[in-house]
Amino acid sequence: MKASERKIRYGMIGGGRGAFIGAVHRIAAGIDGEIELVCGAFSSDPQRSKDSGADLYLPPDRCYGNYEEMMEKEAALPEGERMDFVAIVTPNHVHFPAAKAALEAGFNVLSDKPATFDLAEAKELQKIVEKTGKVYGLTHNYTGYPLVKEARAMVAAGKLGKIRKVVVEYPQGWLATRLEASDQKQAAWRTDPKRSGAAGCVGDIGTHAENLAEYITGLKISELAADLTAFVDGRLLDDDANMLLRFEGGAKGVLHCSQISVGEENNLNIRVYGETGGLEWHQNEPNTLLVKSLDGPTQVFRTGNGYLGAEAASAARTPPSHPEGYLEAFANIYKNFANHLRAVIDGTEPDATSLDYPKIEDGVRGMAFIEAVVASSKNNAAWTKIDA
Amino acid sequence: MKASERKIRYGMIGGGRGAFIGAVHRIAAGIDGEIELVCGAFSSDPQRSKDSGADLYLPPDRCYGNYEEMMEKEAALPEGERMDFVAIVTPNHVHFPAAKAALEAGFNVLSDKPATFDLAEAKELQKIVEKTGKVYGLTHNYTGYPLVKEARAMVAAGKLGKIRKVVVEYPQGWLATRLEASDQKQAAWRTDPKRSGAAGCVGDIGTHAENLAEYITGLKISELAADLTAFVDGRLLDDDANMLLRFEGGAKGVLHCSQISVGEENNLNIRVYGETGGLEWHQNEPNTLLVKSLDGPTQVFRTGNGYLGAEAASAARTPPSHPEGYLEAFANIYKNFANHLRAVIDGTEPDATSLDYPKIEDGVRGMAFIEAVVASSKNNAAWTKIDA
Amino acid sequence: MKASERKIRYGMIGGGRGAFIGAVHRIAAGIDGEIELVCGAFSSDPQRSKDSGADLYLPPDRCYGNYEEMMEKEAALPEGERMDFVAIVTPNHVHFPAAKAALEAGFNVLSDKPATFDLAEAKELQKIVEKTGKVYGLTHNYTGYPLVKEARAMVAAGKLGKIRKVVVEYPQGWLATRLEASDQKQAAWRTDPKRSGAAGCVGDIGTHAENLAEYITGLKISELAADLTAFVDGRLLDDDANMLLRFEGGAKGVLHCSQISVGEENNLNIRVYGETGGLEWHQNEPNTLLVKSLDGPTQVFRTGNGYLGAEAASAARTPPSHPEGYLEAFANIYKNFANHLRAVIDGTEPDATSLDYPKIEDGVRGMAFIEAVVASSKNNAAWTKIDA
Amino acid sequence: MKASERKIRYGMIGGGRGAFIGAVHRIAAGIDGEIELVCGAFSSDPQRSKDSGADLYLPPDRCYGNYEEMMEKEAALPEGERMDFVAIVTPNHVHFPAAKAALEAGFNVLSDKPATFDLAEAKELQKIVEKTGKVYGLTHNYTGYPLVKEARAMVAAGKLGKIRKVVVEYPQGWLATRLEASDQKQAAWRTDPKRSGAAGCVGDIGTHAENLAEYITGLKISELAADLTAFVDGRLLDDDANMLLRFEGGAKGVLHCSQISVGEENNLNIRVYGETGGLEWHQNEPNTLLVKSLDGPTQVFRTGNGYLGAEAASAARTPPSHPEGYLEAFANIYKNFANHLRAVIDGTEPDATSLDYPKIEDGVRGMAFIEAVVASSKNNAAWTKIDA
Repeated sequence: MKASERKIRYGMIGGGRGAFIGAVHRIAAGIDGEIELVCGAFSSDPQRSKDSGADLYLPPDRCYGNYEEMMEKEAALPEGERMDFVAIVTPNHVHFPAAKAALEAGFNVLSDKPATFDLAEAKELQKIVEKTGKVYGLTHNYTGYPLVKEARAMVAAGKLGKIRKVVVEYPQGWLATRLEASDQKQAAWRTDPKRSGAAGCVGDIGTHAENLAEYITGLKISELAADLTAFVDGRLLDDDANMLLRFEGGAKGVLHCSQISVGEENNLNIRVYGETGGLEWHQNEPNTLLVKSLDGPTQVFRTGNGYLGAEAASAARTPPSHPEGYLEAFANIYKNFANHLRAVIDGTEPDATSLDYPKIEDGVRGMAFIEAVVASSKNNAAWTKIDA
Repeated sequence: MKASERKIRYGMIGGGRGAFIGAVHRIAAGIDGEIELVCGAFSSDPQRSKDSGADLYLPPDRCYGNYEEMMEKEAALPEGERMDFVAIVTPNHVHFPAAKAALEAGFNVLSDKPATFDLAEAKELQKIVEKTGKVYGLTHNYTGYPLVKEARAMVAAGKLGKIRKVVVEYPQGWLATRLEASDQKQAAWRTDPKRSGAAGCVGDIGTHAENLAEYITGLKISELAADLTAFVDGRLLDDDANMLLRFEGGAKGVLHCSQISVGEENNLNIRVYGETGGLEWHQNEPNTLLVKSLDGPTQVFRTGNGYLGAEAASAARTPPSHPEGYLEAFANIYKNFANHLRAVIDGTEPDATSLDYPKIEDGVRGMAFIEAVVASSKNNAAWTKIDA
Repeated sequence: MKASERKIRYGMIGGGRGAFIGAVHRIAAGIDGEIELVCGAFSSDPQRSKDSGADLYLPPDRCYGNYEEMMEKEAALPEGERMDFVAIVTPNHVHFPAAKAALEAGFNVLSDKPATFDLAEAKELQKIVEKTGKVYGLTHNYTGYPLVKEARAMVAAGKLGKIRKVVVEYPQGWLATRLEASDQKQAAWRTDPKRSGAAGCVGDIGTHAENLAEYITGLKISELAADLTAFVDGRLLDDDANMLLRFEGGAKGVLHCSQISVGEENNLNIRVYGETGGLEWHQNEPNTLLVKSLDGPTQVFRTGNGYLGAEAASAARTPPSHPEGYLEAFANIYKNFANHLRAVIDGTEPDATSLDYPKIEDGVRGMAFIEAVVASSKNNAAWTKIDA
Repeated sequence: MKASERKIRYGMIGGGRGAFIGAVHRIAAGIDGEIELVCGAFSSDPQRSKDSGADLYLPPDRCYGNYEEMMEKEAALPEGERMDFVAIVTPNHVHFPAAKAALEAGFNVLSDKPATFDLAEAKELQKIVEKTGKVYGLTHNYTGYPLVKEARAMVAAGKLGKIRKVVVEYPQGWLATRLEASDQKQAAWRTDPKRSGAAGCVGDIGTHAENLAEYITGLKISELAADLTAFVDGRLLDDDANMLLRFEGGAKGVLHCSQISVGEENNLNIRVYGETGGLEWHQNEPNTLLVKSLDGPTQVFRTGNGYLGAEAASAARTPPSHPEGYLEAFANIYKNFANHLRAVIDGTEPDATSLDYPKIEDGVRGMAFIEAVVASSKNNAAWTKIDA
């Protein structure tokens, strides 16, 4: 059976009982009825993995105790049965070895971000992706919102003229106290250099801001000057970051992110100004895009309307003002990835929309961004180039 | 296998290629991985039904040419295989016969609203539900939003004091021109008295406003004075309605809905004022609930935060400011319905949350509301009681 | 000296120490440096009147103990010194006798609203205005906002097509408890039928809503069906009103106002829908006007921008996003009234802008509105025509 | 006559026909009826000065051809007649010599910002103020908003805990094209280094952001790293600025301002985050202050409510949701300045509120800020201390 005539099958690494992002991935994967979960290595504890799988109505023999076992046993299954790809939803330090194992066992990969623990790993992973020829995707999920796609299309179509300024922010407040001192699992690994990497806040959410800015503008950040702080006593990684940006082509910008901005939820937002127009989008009200002009009133673009372009239209599942949410945006990454995968499996030409998801290049770039930020901050916010 | 240990299975009536609400129902049903589509009578054209089912990866022998065939063949399947319930997503005039057929064949029903074509049917359906003892649910989906549940819980807990005033609105603008004169399928049946019923705008969206007001306040509208208009030339049913409300217990209110309010999307919203507090919620930004008080600043409640009550918490799938949308709210109707169904099938005690979905009583009430509105308007907006 | 070469002079009736609206009138009158306060009968207690005048740097001999004395003594002053008009800022029951006395003494009048205590007085006042030929203005101040003028101009220019629906609201919450039982002066007279008139909430703020709706649409309300309530125990006048509207020409509408809507400040707002466009304006953010269309995104018009029409431009004092407030709107009534007065005094042709302020016809209409509302409500919300 | 028993008198330098900010100052000065304009040197062209004065109903002999003449002639007038202070509303390069002349002639000064053309002048002016003992004020007008005062009081009262992060922005879009190439007077002098000073955008509006941040937090910026750009071809001064901030005591921050941010009006805004709370305020909706907390919902503080502190209450002229605007905020600078002046003239103790206006120290600090920004940017955004 051709991949275009069946559901795409995946296995999950991580995401067992008590995890947070695994459930999000499963909803995102399943929302359109085009992708089905067939197996998992949900936990490094084999029994916990089986119990987690049972919660999801998976048969015990497809619930593995670790990803190595998963690769081996899945690879041994008949083609019509074995998984097509793995979704990696572990803490950061496992992303690379899990992705490597899957790719080298012949499986495609859709990984939670960041791609790896550090830049060296990311570059190595890029080589593995190239060598194996497998499909690799990364869930920089905020680029899945319909109006983010509209924004990108507007910039690409020149509706703002040459881009001059970008302001991108991702303030949160949930780590304003030393939450990791309690047994809060999400806080614990994110503030632990061994599991999170060289940066805290910047790695966790700053990379989303960086990715969003580059996705919408189509411009690369060339260098940055960053000032990181760990405000909470005893915290080992940054919980706040302010930085100046310079883009290729001359645009300037500001990026700041924070996990100590009391009262902020997931307030990712961006403003882009070109020679003739401006854009503004906020993740917490994601169905509104403000479009600004030199002489006329600001226009309020809303998800689902007929005046939107093809990119935004294809990313919405409901009519106007039936609000699309975070899960739908996340699902758009899965949808495009799966459609691309179908074309690859079937040897057909993928359509352009199916290629619109973050790839290993975005992953390498994200890790290079983190390293540049950390290096700049250690050097008293000296201008530092992004090595990717 | 106990229902609590497996996915709940359903078949769909209506929702074939080209339909709108069917896809919404399928996403809502599937989003949590707890309910699976196993069959369908997607179209009265057998081939179209099979083609629609194939799009959904269903085997041809579970794709039926009509609901009668569906009932017969599904009933003949072994218990572990046949559907547990049907989802009815046809135009209004088919709701009653399809629900009747399903219930009488021993299947549970989750129906799109309105429950039936008119009040007489609704009352008959209520009897059938009672006689068959089957579970019946109705997708007044807007009550599925987490903050609508928070609002209801606040009122129930007396945080607003005795309720005095309710303002509930549902303006849309999409029928401001004679869209039904083109081949727009959604406009065509909604403006056709034979398929839509005695009311246009009031039946389509006014009932959502009525249901939302009664759900949040826990109060019944006792009588109303309604002024209906068909503004667009040649339109046979109302496309705009303004009405005064009186609630049991003395609260007063205003309900207005419209499909000619140019530029409005699905702007369902409600404000409730009691002796000591007030509430405000808008469907187009559904993750915000404004809570007002006699002396202090207005508070902005947001989905997913720790300060929310159990009802709202159980209805959210993501952390704060990861916006929950229309599909998640819709899915909450399915989730609770399916959980209730599991308890019924297994003969266990359902938990309170699983009972929180609209039932046949809401359906009867909605039809009684429509008839009262139409009668009042024909009588020059005379006060008219709701017969249910 | 011609009136166009000097400041316009006025005296104030009411507005002594402890009053509220008097200070607002004085700021509004003085803001442009074109109108100066020269005398007052600030209180019925002569000493209090003189003390109040001294606070305002007025000489004692221009501070009168009552308006009769004021008329007599001012009339005796030389032309270059005596006041040109009186501003009446007393409680409602004094509006008529004070206006009558001033007009008959040859002075022009700018009165706080409502024009009089009841409709009979208003009609009599209209005759007096006509007979004396003096200039009479009424501070329905909300029509002074620049974007209200933009809205009116848009409707007049046909940009919305034929008007179909109007929703106008004025919710407040400050009388949600029995504030008049304390010594709160504002609450006391507004809830007292002897000083306020036949209606409470409707007279105080409902008339602003009525005036705003008719000002913007250029349409008259022909009949209404109103349901009034006094929710607070022991209150003698309505503190909440809901009503259905029918306009000349076929438009429909809803008007509701309230003083028991907990947490609402002065949330006057209006939405107007025509065949091809819509408008939305909120007094609490008065520098934004939403303009809606059949097919395109909503546009956000903001005070002070170059794309606004002449009417809005002439009503703003600052550049874009230097927010104009309530006092500036109020001042626009004074500005136009004074400019009209200058033309009348000098015998020149007034420009069109100077005629844009509420007049005795608006006053009569407001009183007729109140009487129709009260009559309708007494008759169980029967449709009642407005007698003016 | 004591100053407390009369209006305060002022003369204006600059602000003749065609000027912009002069009219704003006059409205602000006059709004409360406590300050009167008695003379002016409105233009360096004597006839234009007289014509401008005539527009304002001033006698010709109080309209001077330049400020030197003004000082001489006003000083010669009797005490009960001559001006108490001068308001300086010229382009930047005239601020210093005019202030110097006035102070040395024995007059108090209220100057538009920036205080002077450069830091050296500012420091010299500070010495003159100290030597002459005259009262000097500066119209950093945005600190006059009631809710800015509430924000400052909250921080001072420790309601946010120790401050960690400040984000302050002032984007505008009006210079996105080369407006100065036309004959637009405002654009022309602001982009001319000879009249504007070392900085363009930073001097014009960046200083407002700096002043607002320091006013609200009570913290001084200790050092900054700034990246300035002149985006518009041929422009000699910066039209965009991004900078990192470090405050005394360890807080960090971001300040960015721009005149090429297309579609932005005067979007000055600030967010402040402490250990236990956060604040957010936007000048374009200045009657709302968002107050954020660790665990509870965000609160919406609104101008004029009873729950506000004394500072905000004393700065408002109208009740809740009668929006206060830019002119009222501006007027609060004048009000406090004049009240302080009264106490000084009468030799009484000024009350605390009357001392709440920007002074020469703020002026020096603003100029030091500008010089630090320009120096940092020339040094590739190296960290630069503020020399004041």
